[in-house]
Amino acid sequence: MKLSERGAVAPFIVMDVMERARRAEAAGRHIIHMEVGQPGTPAPRTAREALARAMEAGPLGYTVALGLPELRARIARHYRDRYGVDLNPERVVITSGASAGFILAFTALFDAGDRVGMGIPGYPSYRHILRALSLDAVGIETAMADGFQPLPDQIGGDLDGLIVASPGNPAGTMLDRAALAALVSRCSEADVALVSDEIYHGIEYEQRAVSALELSDDVFIINSFSKYFSMTGWRVGWMVVPESHIRQVERLAQNLFICPSHASQVAALAAFEGMAELDANLAVYAANRQMMLDRLPGAGFPRFAAPDGAFYVYADVTQFGHDALILSQRILDEAGVAVTPGLDFDPERGGGMLRFSYARSTEDVAEGLSRLRAWSEKAGVSASR
Amino acid sequence: MKLSERGAVAPFIVMDVMERARRAEAAGRHIIHMEVGQPGTPAPRTAREALARAMEAGPLGYTVALGLPELRARIARHYRDRYGVDLNPERVVITSGASAGFILAFTALFDAGDRVGMGIPGYPSYRHILRALSLDAVGIETAMADGFQPLPDQIGGDLDGLIVASPGNPAGTMLDRAALAALVSRCSEADVALVSDEIYHGIEYEQRAVSALELSDDVFIINSFSKYFSMTGWRVGWMVVPESHIRQVERLAQNLFICPSHASQVAALAAFEGMAELDANLAVYAANRQMMLDRLPGAGFPRFAAPDGAFYVYADVTQFGHDALILSQRILDEAGVAVTPGLDFDPERGGGMLRFSYARSTEDVAEGLSRLRAWSEKAGVSASR
Repeated sequence: MKLSERGAVAPFIVMDVMERARRAEAAGRHIIHMEVGQPGTPAPRTAREALARAMEAGPLGYTVALGLPELRARIARHYRDRYGVDLNPERVVITSGASAGFILAFTALFDAGDRVGMGIPGYPSYRHILRALSLDAVGIETAMADGFQPLPDQIGGDLDGLIVASPGNPAGTMLDRAALAALVSRCSEADVALVSDEIYHGIEYEQRAVSALELSDDVFIINSFSKYFSMTGWRVGWMVVPESHIRQVERLAQNLFICPSHASQVAALAAFEGMAELDANLAVYAANRQMMLDRLPGAGFPRFAAPDGAFYVYADVTQFGHDALILSQRILDEAGVAVTPGLDFDPERGGGMLRFSYARSTEDVAEGLSRLRAWSEKAGVSASR
Repeated sequence: MKLSERGAVAPFIVMDVMERARRAEAAGRHIIHMEVGQPGTPAPRTAREALARAMEAGPLGYTVALGLPELRARIARHYRDRYGVDLNPERVVITSGASAGFILAFTALFDAGDRVGMGIPGYPSYRHILRALSLDAVGIETAMADGFQPLPDQIGGDLDGLIVASPGNPAGTMLDRAALAALVSRCSEADVALVSDEIYHGIEYEQRAVSALELSDDVFIINSFSKYFSMTGWRVGWMVVPESHIRQVERLAQNLFICPSHASQVAALAAFEGMAELDANLAVYAANRQMMLDRLPGAGFPRFAAPDGAFYVYADVTQFGHDALILSQRILDEAGVAVTPGLDFDPERGGGMLRFSYARSTEDVAEGLSRLRAWSEKAGVSASR
């Protein structure tokens, strides 16, 4: 039986590290997990309690394709409260996580062979989802000095679309209002459809992340309950789409997904009542980030852009060589710390980069930093400052 | 902002009926719902209780992309218990409903422009999902006398794939072992990838549905917890894929979906302990089916193939004209019964067909049949027998 060409997406290199960490733990070693891309906290109590009640109140059948109307309305209110944007709830589309949001956005906007740009380094699934949908992913090389974000003059008219992410993954850096506005305006001029991945919004430190929706109605916003709302495994997220695209997205959603999980939608709606709990999680990330900023340089990893949001630091580790996979294996084996090699985010330059996550407890982050420091001192490499 | 060509899938015609029914109910009318495609029962108690416990036991983070290993193993055991098939659990892929199963199967098997056949009438989302993925849907006209199933000599070498569904939707008719084996063998000869939609397995009446997996390992099986397991809104299903396709499907699943809902996977695993409750639901469908077989002809709708499974009857209604949408609106307005016009399942011949669902309570089915009988007598049409 044939294997499709478009299905031949690259495997995740981090899987090797995760499997190696799993085997080490199975053999009794204690590993600090700085490779994870998700909160260690559960869905807020309000979400779990609401679902427990709803499950006993009646069947959770299909919802309409665009999601529970009360959840769409609640999200629209969130845009008013948080961003000062007055949003028609009809433009809010509930999705099975940001993943389904990307599938819907890309199939609603692009035809086979269309070219979609994205900053490199970036979330690897962007290019793999595009490939699986017979679209051409066009990498745009970004620089640490620019916070690993693309610049307007890199957006050519040969593109049909552009994905931006602020805060981004792997670096956690943000586009400020002026930089995002310049990209929005360039995309509009060049007739490039802008897809703004805002899944790390809410996890931000020194200033509030700007939504592309504050700057234009003619954008696709992708968001999720996974990160700030601490609901990764529930697979529920949302999009905001232009009025012009609601019906197309609705028909695609009816056919491609029927609806997002009803159970997860019930939980998501109630998660908005759990913000005190979520803001306590955020305080942990903020403490962890400060510890990373303070101690990662002394632990042998001084070269990174300070993250504005999310829970990652993406560091240049070329002082240890140019094979990040081998380096991550060494750090795992010798220091007992799992980290992510940069190669998934940047197949070319990522060999000299590592991503450190600080999503877990402050105790774990402190222990991870101590182990890294001891390791790099023993590794005998004097990190350049 | 551009709208893609491939996203321009047709709207569901049944939505018009559903919206009209909703408005009638909002105005205080009592409507019998024979248009619904889902059980009226909840997830089994075992499933709900297991999730209630799991939510309190710890965070429900991402699972691995192919799903919880214990759920994959439990499904493999289900194939041994139910079909006598010895199945490697590695071949079982947990999906976000059958919907995600189709997206994964089609992207793993087919490239843009490939041609995939399906019997018409059939589930409309097959052709819409194919279009959204830049694939060509090729309708194969089937006959009531053949249970609306395609015949082997209709499968040409110009096809790259074929979707079969047994029991099928809208007619509930099954391929027996010999007929399915003939299709499997024809597909193998002609190098056509066979995707077998088995989501109505378990809801069957006079004989057990045959799985394509009993006949070949070189097929894609799509199944779901939605129907027999009564978990539509939970969006959890599974595939069985050939050994040769596990890695490709895994990489696609990692990128396209990350994982199915962890919460729904926990519930699905425990649903296997709730089969007594599910078999009680099945007894209701069986009673409803018998009532439909006994009374639908006398209610003015004598021309249909008796359903072997699922919870639908697909009837020729040309004695009432050839505009099934108008007819379904009349039956709703005049009889207070919502039914599905055949046009979604068969854009050409469906104008003379209606689908009647008997998924709700026996009391509702009895009342629906009485209303239909009174309506057709009043409509003054003597239905041909």
